[in-house]
Amino acid sequence: MTIESESLALHEKLKGKLEIKSKMPVDSMKLLSLFYTPGVAEVSREIFKNKNRVYDLTNKWNSVAIITDGTRVLGLGKVGPEAALPVMEGKAILFKQFGNVDAVPLCIKAKTAAEIVNFAEMVSPTFGGINIEDIETPKCFEIYERLLEKLDIFVFHDDRQGTAIVTLAGLINALKVVGKKHESAKVVIGGAGAAGIGIAELLVEYGFKNIILVDSSGIIYEGRKENMNKYKEKISRLTNKSKVKGKMEDALVGADVLIGTIGIENSISEEMVRKMNKNQIVFALTNPNPEIYPDAAKKAGAKVIGTGRSDFPNQINNSLAFPGVFRGALDVRARKINTKMQIAAALALAGMVQNPIAEKILPNTIDNGVMQAVAKAVASAARESGVARLI
Amino acid sequence: MTIESESLALHEKLKGKLEIKSKMPVDSMKLLSLFYTPGVAEVSREIFKNKNRVYDLTNKWNSVAIITDGTRVLGLGKVGPEAALPVMEGKAILFKQFGNVDAVPLCIKAKTAAEIVNFAEMVSPTFGGINIEDIETPKCFEIYERLLEKLDIFVFHDDRQGTAIVTLAGLINALKVVGKKHESAKVVIGGAGAAGIGIAELLVEYGFKNIILVDSSGIIYEGRKENMNKYKEKISRLTNKSKVKGKMEDALVGADVLIGTIGIENSISEEMVRKMNKNQIVFALTNPNPEIYPDAAKKAGAKVIGTGRSDFPNQINNSLAFPGVFRGALDVRARKINTKMQIAAALALAGMVQNPIAEKILPNTIDNGVMQAVAKAVASAARESGVARLI
Repeated sequence: MTIESESLALHEKLKGKLEIKSKMPVDSMKLLSLFYTPGVAEVSREIFKNKNRVYDLTNKWNSVAIITDGTRVLGLGKVGPEAALPVMEGKAILFKQFGNVDAVPLCIKAKTAAEIVNFAEMVSPTFGGINIEDIETPKCFEIYERLLEKLDIFVFHDDRQGTAIVTLAGLINALKVVGKKHESAKVVIGGAGAAGIGIAELLVEYGFKNIILVDSSGIIYEGRKENMNKYKEKISRLTNKSKVKGKMEDALVGADVLIGTIGIENSISEEMVRKMNKNQIVFALTNPNPEIYPDAAKKAGAKVIGTGRSDFPNQINNSLAFPGVFRGALDVRARKINTKMQIAAALALAGMVQNPIAEKILPNTIDNGVMQAVAKAVASAARESGVARLI
Repeated sequence: MTIESESLALHEKLKGKLEIKSKMPVDSMKLLSLFYTPGVAEVSREIFKNKNRVYDLTNKWNSVAIITDGTRVLGLGKVGPEAALPVMEGKAILFKQFGNVDAVPLCIKAKTAAEIVNFAEMVSPTFGGINIEDIETPKCFEIYERLLEKLDIFVFHDDRQGTAIVTLAGLINALKVVGKKHESAKVVIGGAGAAGIGIAELLVEYGFKNIILVDSSGIIYEGRKENMNKYKEKISRLTNKSKVKGKMEDALVGADVLIGTIGIENSISEEMVRKMNKNQIVFALTNPNPEIYPDAAKKAGAKVIGTGRSDFPNQINNSLAFPGVFRGALDVRARKINTKMQIAAALALAGMVQNPIAEKILPNTIDNGVMQAVAKAVASAARESGVARLI
């Protein structure tokens, strides 16, 4: 049985992966009158008098909305809200299992960025945070920016920020394995969507000095005219300082790290990997089918290889970060999830593997203590950087 | 300890009444790869190929959104989405406990009916049905009508339809207790909001011939100019055939039944009840504080007395209906919840009390078999009336 057919059979059997439970059974008329009318009216009155009490008396403090329009699901593309639902349910059960976060999938029918922004803003009173997910670029960037301005709860764009956290964590340890320094390592990122740009932004913040992004039109440099948007323009000013032009092959000359966020299976060839400096680090992050499979990358000489999948070694997947990041942010009622919190999360993750080796640069999502470590680091960074409402 | 302070203390302790659980723990890398990437991609592909498969492979079949803007919460009024949240959480735990329905509270910030309609339409791919709740009139009527046209899943307006079902059920048995017939009984309904209009509509459908509605401007009659809207106009054509005018006191002369949906504590006096025919039936439905308390109504001569509260006898509260109604509608993937289904639910509820007496006209929400009986009746009526997608 392949993993595909096994997953399908399991989903068919469960008919959905989530359920909503009461924390206490409502099995007496007394409890009914406390949880519902008439008792609950007093709880409403209390929150009406002081809105902040909603954090003490309801699930808001621990609830998160996972919002998607299904326009860029995994590596599958524009499959629509219904087909996005099993992925968001999967995300929700990881939120609960690893972060004890109550996450609600909201797969929505929406055409424009403005509609999604309005939707998220409308639903925000119910939740402590919002995760936007699997929305096509550049729409997702625009939505994130507008929500940052509009919401009084934090918003996280997991495809961008979550992927960046786990990639940085993996890279910190991979560089240890090959004995290179982040300040001098040359990093090539394939793809300039949410993941590619998110990774580049966080690597710059962390102190990487030599990054080149490559998209379907070739190397991105400041001043390029073709196939740009304001997010690519912004990142072009922070990367590729020597304004190299050309194709992926040109970018790879002298590269130490290749990170694939291209969304196309087998779009990285063995020849490409061979162009890089020795002891190549190759992260092929597209899910479910990576840009290059581990055996091919190894054949081409790569020393440390990661993918987004849990069935190969070195899974570089946001599932390592988002449950702990949200746990930490919710615990301090963070107003936002800033770069300092993201770097703290990456360092905490990297720190979970004391002696990284080529086949083991990151912990597994299911390992004990991972999410607690991330949550603690994120909460501390939130407090130190002044975005925590609870100290 | 009062019920108010006890409820507040319990809410403070629980910090929210709901949680989201995985149906299976994700405790191995294998399960992670089946529930999330890469396995889940196959489930997305399957739904992308055939959208109806979302009912087999996700929670959509069993999920319901409870949508409110918090403009008319219980009898409290316009308290806002945050203060509405504990009530919607209470509703969600009753949905689960009594109907095994997974209901998600979505308390939203919205100004217009159009915004709420858009919101519900956007979120509809995730859910099998939508419950609109505690929205002020006439906005709620307009929203309901537009959603009926727009959605491909059913929508239920519990304040209107749920209240009507339970009131009709109570009335069927109360009339037995006092030995009167529904065709000849005179019914006065105080309040012409969602509950008052919904009750009048369903009683008319059931075969009541003599109904008078009274609102803050007095008796409603066809052609009244003052304080009308198109929903009051519609109901004015179906009730008060002799076009009686005047005040509540005038309406009550010769009345057998008085149903309060006024929203104001103690707005029905003993004198008013005394104006009615003997063996009065008085349902004072405003929550949490009824229009007349049972002891006062009894003193005024009422024979059968009901309120919305679970701490008095004869609770006439939608919690008796909505879990079973939704269970039945979800089970057959109903396209709508029509009048036949509502009457079937009322008859099933009334049938749960074999020998009604003045102090016991309805079952309790927590009684065994109540929700199953309602669900079965609703599913059958949906099949017979041609709105069931599953037969």
